[in-house]
Amino acid sequence: MNILVINSGSSSLKYQFFDMDNNKVLAKGNCERIGIDGVITHKKDGKEDYKKEADLKGHDEAIQLVLDLLMDKEYGVISSLDEIDAVGHRIAHGGEKLRQSSIIGDEELKYLESIQMIAPLHVPPAIKGIVACKKLMDVPQVGVFDTSFYSTMEDYAYIYPLPYDLYEKHQIRRYGFHGTSHRYVASRAAKMLGKDMKDLKIVTCHLGNGSSITAVNQGKAVDTSMGFMPNDGILMGTRCGAVDPSVLMYLINSLGMDPKEVEDIINKKSGLLGVTGVSSDARDVREAAENGDARARLAEKILVHGIKKFIGSYAAEMNGLDVVVFTAGLGENSAILREWVCTDMDFLGIQMDNDKNANSPRGQEIDVSAADSKVKVLVIPTNEEYMIALDTAELAAQDK
Amino acid sequence: MNILVINSGSSSLKYQFFDMDNNKVLAKGNCERIGIDGVITHKKDGKEDYKKEADLKGHDEAIQLVLDLLMDKEYGVISSLDEIDAVGHRIAHGGEKLRQSSIIGDEELKYLESIQMIAPLHVPPAIKGIVACKKLMDVPQVGVFDTSFYSTMEDYAYIYPLPYDLYEKHQIRRYGFHGTSHRYVASRAAKMLGKDMKDLKIVTCHLGNGSSITAVNQGKAVDTSMGFMPNDGILMGTRCGAVDPSVLMYLINSLGMDPKEVEDIINKKSGLLGVTGVSSDARDVREAAENGDARARLAEKILVHGIKKFIGSYAAEMNGLDVVVFTAGLGENSAILREWVCTDMDFLGIQMDNDKNANSPRGQEIDVSAADSKVKVLVIPTNEEYMIALDTAELAAQDK
Repeated sequence: MNILVINSGSSSLKYQFFDMDNNKVLAKGNCERIGIDGVITHKKDGKEDYKKEADLKGHDEAIQLVLDLLMDKEYGVISSLDEIDAVGHRIAHGGEKLRQSSIIGDEELKYLESIQMIAPLHVPPAIKGIVACKKLMDVPQVGVFDTSFYSTMEDYAYIYPLPYDLYEKHQIRRYGFHGTSHRYVASRAAKMLGKDMKDLKIVTCHLGNGSSITAVNQGKAVDTSMGFMPNDGILMGTRCGAVDPSVLMYLINSLGMDPKEVEDIINKKSGLLGVTGVSSDARDVREAAENGDARARLAEKILVHGIKKFIGSYAAEMNGLDVVVFTAGLGENSAILREWVCTDMDFLGIQMDNDKNANSPRGQEIDVSAADSKVKVLVIPTNEEYMIALDTAELAAQDK
Repeated sequence: MNILVINSGSSSLKYQFFDMDNNKVLAKGNCERIGIDGVITHKKDGKEDYKKEADLKGHDEAIQLVLDLLMDKEYGVISSLDEIDAVGHRIAHGGEKLRQSSIIGDEELKYLESIQMIAPLHVPPAIKGIVACKKLMDVPQVGVFDTSFYSTMEDYAYIYPLPYDLYEKHQIRRYGFHGTSHRYVASRAAKMLGKDMKDLKIVTCHLGNGSSITAVNQGKAVDTSMGFMPNDGILMGTRCGAVDPSVLMYLINSLGMDPKEVEDIINKKSGLLGVTGVSSDARDVREAAENGDARARLAEKILVHGIKKFIGSYAAEMNGLDVVVFTAGLGENSAILREWVCTDMDFLGIQMDNDKNANSPRGQEIDVSAADSKVKVLVIPTNEEYMIALDTAELAAQDK
């Protein structure tokens, strides 16, 4: 079975084409600057990269270009559209109703349109991608939601202590994000340890430009650090994560800042960038800290402090901890960050093999815990696209 | 040595008069409706309560009335002002500079005036109380700050991941509150266990209408749940505690709510009141939950969930946990809340003796942990006034 996975942004469209029978990515690429001018980058295994400017007026044109390239004689991997069995779409938000990966019919599309307000940056382009694919192909279009892994959370973990009608009337609650990534690495962790997820208490740390931490108890997500929007929780590249809500009200009501400016601050001018003034990229921050920049070092400490606290809080919530997983850009590639997080955590049973951690090869699944550590510490490269392809293949097979 | 302790609010002034040599409260009372009309309630040990309407135009008149009553033939406990050795003032906020209990001279008063903007509800009445006392008495006026216990926090625990100039220019940081209460119960916990605070890792849970949780490592506060203002952290009577900051921006920028209204919501219409719609009082909420009110039960679960998570996060931060203390209205009096918090927490070493907990007498210090619990669970009635009196006596003695 061949699955096309699509990740639509407002002006971009990433894709991967999977041969599920052989567990292989046959081709992948990215359309950028959609609606502005347009450029596509395409990679086929064993071929040099293909890059070309193109007139991409909208997502329709982008999808058409992707399909053309997939069928291209030189850069293509299939000879006709019939060789695509289904399309999987990454959708950041499934709202309260789309609680698991689903074939997107008219009803689901209508529901997605109804929740655009609570995910204005992410849901509209996803809808565009789905509509474009529906026009060009007659195969199942599957939506895989970042939020659906959290549909198992108890109400006390997702209801904010605000007036209840904000939840009832405006759907304001903790949704959680990066769910596909957390789900993927949690299931890989169980496989690596030769155990059933149902027997494990796992904390998964997805640390990248956006970061979230999730508690996975017996295979189900019970809590997560991101909330209503992809903010809350720990410090990120430019997002603040959790802060005293009074601070925002003080900025607006006492210092007279414009509310739009404050929204911009918490999303685009905070986190690593805000504290350091140097960069939102943890590598730049590391370099600055090594060169003696005190605020860069402070930002790193705030991040580590936040991650440690979430691991502890989730260990309490699950009354136990068997595995800590690090994934995504920072989680996979910053050995020093992993080491800081796992230092002085033996009360929770965490002991890292610092040499193994420091010398772990990139892009591989590896156990970096000390031999006698009660809690396993694992580095697992995330693969949301593969998880989306798996869900899509499963639903498409059921649909036949 | 005799110490008068004053706690000035915007329209109230509470007081206690201590005989420190005999560790006794000789008299206490409360002036209310200051600036409106005025009424005083006064209690002297062994006497029926005294209550009288009075014309209390301002804090000056209230202090004068308190002093008159302390010297009253029938209700008084001293015969002249010379018998008052010092006055201790509870001050909610010491800003960044007043980091420990201090004799309030001109310089300190000036500094307090300069930070009124970040504590507009609490600092101005405290200033009024001090100024009034200075006019009437020539003894040391000591300020004891709710924030000063947190002066030992590391920068990574108090700097928010926001643009750094908000800290530098506007003093926006985590300050922490209820410090005098947390300090008192932490020191009592060490005494109860016959240990030095320096050898203990303590989490103190001050649970009342306002609630905060503090991590005390080796006698020093290393973290606390309240932040810039007395919000953040866990759900309270009417305050929301921590929520995704994006929620507030959504209420204002997407739903078009007035920022003042949102400030009102997070401070006065959230927490137990917001979730239940019933009451901000945990006793009413308990009653409603027992009568089958699902949202009342939900609010209780959100509270318990939040407390558990803070205990876990602080155990991780301190890499250990020896003692959990419950104090303040709810912490001292709600055995069921303590039981819920300590259920399924054995991974952290917490095991409660549920019978002992359920039958613990009110107003007494008691160890409610199971005999083999690694972590001691203590109920300790808080006594901020006594802590203030102790600090005041110490500084007054040094000042002689």
